[in-house]
Amino acid sequence: MTGLEAEAFDWSAVTWVAVDWGTSNLRVWLMGAGDTVLDERSSGQGMGRLQPHQFEAALCEVLGDFGDRHLPVIICGMAGARQGWQEAPYEAVPWMPKAVQGVTVATSSPRLSVTILPGLSQHTPPDVMRGEETQIAGFLTQEPDFSGVLCLPGTHTKWVKVEGGRIVHFRTVMTGEIFALLSGQSVLRHSVGAGTDWDDAEFDHCVGQSADISDLFAIRAAGLVQNLSSSTLRSRLSATLLSMEVASVVDIWQGLEVVIIGAGGVGGLYQRALALRAAKVRQLDGGQLVLDGLRAAYAVLGTN
Amino acid sequence: MTGLEAEAFDWSAVTWVAVDWGTSNLRVWLMGAGDTVLDERSSGQGMGRLQPHQFEAALCEVLGDFGDRHLPVIICGMAGARQGWQEAPYEAVPWMPKAVQGVTVATSSPRLSVTILPGLSQHTPPDVMRGEETQIAGFLTQEPDFSGVLCLPGTHTKWVKVEGGRIVHFRTVMTGEIFALLSGQSVLRHSVGAGTDWDDAEFDHCVGQSADISDLFAIRAAGLVQNLSSSTLRSRLSATLLSMEVASVVDIWQGLEVVIIGAGGVGGLYQRALALRAAKVRQLDGGQLVLDGLRAAYAVLGTN
Repeated sequence: MTGLEAEAFDWSAVTWVAVDWGTSNLRVWLMGAGDTVLDERSSGQGMGRLQPHQFEAALCEVLGDFGDRHLPVIICGMAGARQGWQEAPYEAVPWMPKAVQGVTVATSSPRLSVTILPGLSQHTPPDVMRGEETQIAGFLTQEPDFSGVLCLPGTHTKWVKVEGGRIVHFRTVMTGEIFALLSGQSVLRHSVGAGTDWDDAEFDHCVGQSADISDLFAIRAAGLVQNLSSSTLRSRLSATLLSMEVASVVDIWQGLEVVIIGAGGVGGLYQRALALRAAKVRQLDGGQLVLDGLRAAYAVLGTN
Repeated sequence: MTGLEAEAFDWSAVTWVAVDWGTSNLRVWLMGAGDTVLDERSSGQGMGRLQPHQFEAALCEVLGDFGDRHLPVIICGMAGARQGWQEAPYEAVPWMPKAVQGVTVATSSPRLSVTILPGLSQHTPPDVMRGEETQIAGFLTQEPDFSGVLCLPGTHTKWVKVEGGRIVHFRTVMTGEIFALLSGQSVLRHSVGAGTDWDDAEFDHCVGQSADISDLFAIRAAGLVQNLSSSTLRSRLSATLLSMEVASVVDIWQGLEVVIIGAGGVGGLYQRALALRAAKVRQLDGGQLVLDGLRAAYAVLGTN
């Protein structure tokens, strides 16, 4: 975005600003009448790079000069963490989107009214989410009475049980982060290589079998003893961890419909792991869910 | 060791040299009549730091000037890996120490007769060891007809089933390496801290429960939601991984006596994890086993 484009933008139609502020990225939508998107902007100024006093400037840099408009801003994600802009304490499950309560943030500019949405927490077993609850709120705008399980794959995958539009239970499994550490930094790096080659048949074969922690070194040993390719061993590592994950949360998904948020790619791997266990699964492109969830929060909070 | 000490050593009584050459360290014993130890030396010139052509010089540096003695040298460990001094291909299980076969290594010095002992491999499930087989051979010099399980804790812990003095099956679990990666580099580092504080009660409580991959992020969440101390969470992480490990190899140890090689420390954690599962366990200080195993190999190979 150049300064020229920023000047050219007509701020008079903007009624509020939706923000998804993650650890690595900041996404901003300028919203007009009828909750239409007038403009979409982003920056690499994620929460992980900012001190608390730097958030307002990072937001204003993305917004540019918005003149004398008064702008309500609704933010979800890691900006509300303890190390973020201002802590928005977790709400406990069970929880439903219409119960959303934001935390008001003091700003230097009198023309910004900033609200940060809280994440969710669970006591037993201990768990937390921050940002995904807004994606789920977005999903529930489309299927408000949904009962089943939402699976949100990622570095820390969330498995979320929903009953009649209410989040009742969830688990986080850090499979993505463990895969990155094992394939990049453990002794397994010698076997799985640094590439992204893939072996579909090997993945399908392994992900249907039960697996445990003792199957990890066996991947290294298979490379040494059986001379298997790095693409085969990389697919085996992915399948082994995913099999461990799906089994560890079987009490959440068994007997229920599972909706995987995220089309293709990693979502497809979860789809195969679940389908091989006779789960009823569908995949959904979740690209706009977080914006839908921010819209739903604005509908509840915006007139405060 | 200074040059003066090296000169003062009387090489005339040395009959052979025992060497444990690991990834990080090189340990050397100068052996005399009746397999007594005349001197013990070590260096940080592990296999991980050396190119193949550098091993002989690294060994000679530790030996110093041994005059015109002819020295048989028996080596176990990673010096026999593919990236080591010279590959000593794995022997397949089942295996027993008296079947040991060394690989002769060509040397520049005509006064060194170097033999490297092979590691062991297993086809199903794939597994390998290199060095531990010599510790086990050492154990079997004391209990030649042992039947049961040997547990050798380490970065990559070995679980080895022995029947009548023969190694019949083994599994490697990389729990130690996973603990280091998770506690040092994953999101869990924020919870478990960089210290070594410990909470015995927490460890004992958690290691007796079953655990799976979904219990790992829960450690981070417990830190956030319940404000537990880093020593409690560090002990919980250790117990969670150890519980996963012990369960993953239950088919090896159940119903058999388990001997843990290594007194105190990490060996004690394994001892507690097994005792809570009603296993028959004893701990053994394994400090001299590798030397005993090298002695046993020399007895078989030394006169070749």
